Amino acid sequence: MENLEQAIQHKIDFKTKPLGSLGILESLAKQICLVQKTLKPKIQKPTHLVFAADHGITESGVSSYPSSVTAEMVKNFLRGGAAINVFCRQHQIDLKIIDAGVNFDFEENEDLINSKIRKGTHNFLHTPAMTQEELEKCFELAGKQVDIVFQNGSNCIGFGEMGIGNTSSASMLMNVLTNFPLEECIGKGTGLSQEGLANKVRILQQAKNNHPHPKNPMEALQTFGGFEIAQICGAMLRSYQHNMLILVDGFIATAAFLCAKSIEPNIQNNAIFCHQSDEQGHQRMLDFLGAKPLLHLDMRLGEGTGCALAFPLIKSAIKFFNEMSDFESAGVSNKD
Amino acid sequence: MENLEQAIQHKIDFKTKPLGSLGILESLAKQICLVQKTLKPKIQKPTHLVFAADHGITESGVSSYPSSVTAEMVKNFLRGGAAINVFCRQHQIDLKIIDAGVNFDFEENEDLINSKIRKGTHNFLHTPAMTQEELEKCFELAGKQVDIVFQNGSNCIGFGEMGIGNTSSASMLMNVLTNFPLEECIGKGTGLSQEGLANKVRILQQAKNNHPHPKNPMEALQTFGGFEIAQICGAMLRSYQHNMLILVDGFIATAAFLCAKSIEPNIQNNAIFCHQSDEQGHQRMLDFLGAKPLLHLDMRLGEGTGCALAFPLIKSAIKFFNEMSDFESAGVSNKD
Repeated sequence: MENLEQAIQHKIDFKTKPLGSLGILESLAKQICLVQKTLKPKIQKPTHLVFAADHGITESGVSSYPSSVTAEMVKNFLRGGAAINVFCRQHQIDLKIIDAGVNFDFEENEDLINSKIRKGTHNFLHTPAMTQEELEKCFELAGKQVDIVFQNGSNCIGFGEMGIGNTSSASMLMNVLTNFPLEECIGKGTGLSQEGLANKVRILQQAKNNHPHPKNPMEALQTFGGFEIAQICGAMLRSYQHNMLILVDGFIATAAFLCAKSIEPNIQNNAIFCHQSDEQGHQRMLDFLGAKPLLHLDMRLGEGTGCALAFPLIKSAIKFFNEMSDFESAGVSNKD
Repeated sequence: MENLEQAIQHKIDFKTKPLGSLGILESLAKQICLVQKTLKPKIQKPTHLVFAADHGITESGVSSYPSSVTAEMVKNFLRGGAAINVFCRQHQIDLKIIDAGVNFDFEENEDLINSKIRKGTHNFLHTPAMTQEELEKCFELAGKQVDIVFQNGSNCIGFGEMGIGNTSSASMLMNVLTNFPLEECIGKGTGLSQEGLANKVRILQQAKNNHPHPKNPMEALQTFGGFEIAQICGAMLRSYQHNMLILVDGFIATAAFLCAKSIEPNIQNNAIFCHQSDEQGHQRMLDFLGAKPLLHLDMRLGEGTGCALAFPLIKSAIKFFNEMSDFESAGVSNKD
């Protein structure tokens, strides 16, 4: 491995450019080469999975949108009209929508993958969001979907989510896994007012009082949900087993990644952090992970839009590594 | 105009996403619509011009690369092996290389545009970099190239540069145009040591003592050069006359933009700032302009690589605006 790492660095350093001058693209190229154990990296069949689910905690008024929006947005995904559809089309990323637990009976549709656990989690203010069996089912079903993507030839997978109320779950998970004060883990989500935010903090503080000490990340997931977050966590772990590149987006997907990393610390070798969200807490989560995201566009949309938007930069990193000439072959003088 | 602006904002706000959740892409879409005076923005034949020239100041040891690298890199551009070639190919951006004043006799080549003023500027440590006639010639030749690009159907133009020594010119221009202390305007360029940087600061301070008060941006350009910076400035001004989108990259291109803006303040309406360079001083220049660049990738390569890398984000802004469904047509509930 050391020899490969040296060979990669040498190839980067002798490209016709000042040393280090491609910045983050250089470290990204190196990471991808190390994951793929090659001096000829490539991305094959990039795929993006959006997991959708509903959340019992919305009963307690933590979101500015009604929870019916989760199902409505799933239909919007299936018609191709959402932001993630637009950006995946732009970059030829294969997009799959997964019902992990939406509170709606969808008609059969070949573009919608049915991994529904139940029609939304329990309200974790009162009771754990899901049972242990349901959590195991999340991992099993999500792993199966990743297997299909991998067997289809993909080596690069992104994750997005849709679920009204899911920033509340993500905040609780962040609090358990990072030990940052709960208030610092809570933000405005899809756009709460100051008053709405104060209410969200109060509700989540109560929830914490009711479930003070989840023993481990699995118990935290079971307690605070949601089905989509648990499925993303399971899907990330399976992607790592297949040695795929794992594209991590915003606040909720990063919370799922935090869970995955506390189960499999090495997963971060394969993770590319795509966008720093405008949601309070995401920056701190990324700092906690020591992660430097590729984009800072002040977005807070979810769906994994950051993954799709960062994708051309990932390709650029691979392309400069594979296609740029080096000082010797180009006859360019290197530094004095 | 006010009605158009309202119509644009309304269209953005009723897309199926939380209000404002596409962050910088929303302001970018709005800017492009306002420039193009339309609710159906589009990019046509994106084109990137790289201007190359040599600098007399390199005699005084301000760069870590020999000035022969300018000509060598031009040949590398013509063979397609440089970073800007790779990224323009990736995004189907038409790339043109312009010899604005390289110290080399190139063989005739249909891919190299000859706008050579002279084989490099004078050393501005001692005498002005160019004559007034040469500066006027820079504007005339650059304007002509932009006319050709525009007549070819392009409405979006990026600018890059190659010129060993040109961060020195850019630092001097920044100092004159922003009044920031000279030391804050000087950085390591392609990778000077601490000692090399100290020498560069000393040399440029001497140059400033020798030419203390250029009266206006034109005199500053004439005094400190270089030919590529002056041609980029002229090209930006002509692009604005054609109402094109103007993609501004790193330290040197932004110095050219500073000159252009002090001649035509409205040019910033059409400018998209693509990347914040790792070169000290670029952040301050951007703050001075009130500009928020799209990318922060710690690059300091030049060639306009930041423009090419940011290009897919510009397309994403247009695509979400044109292609995303709105709440009503998608049957998605809006905020309570």
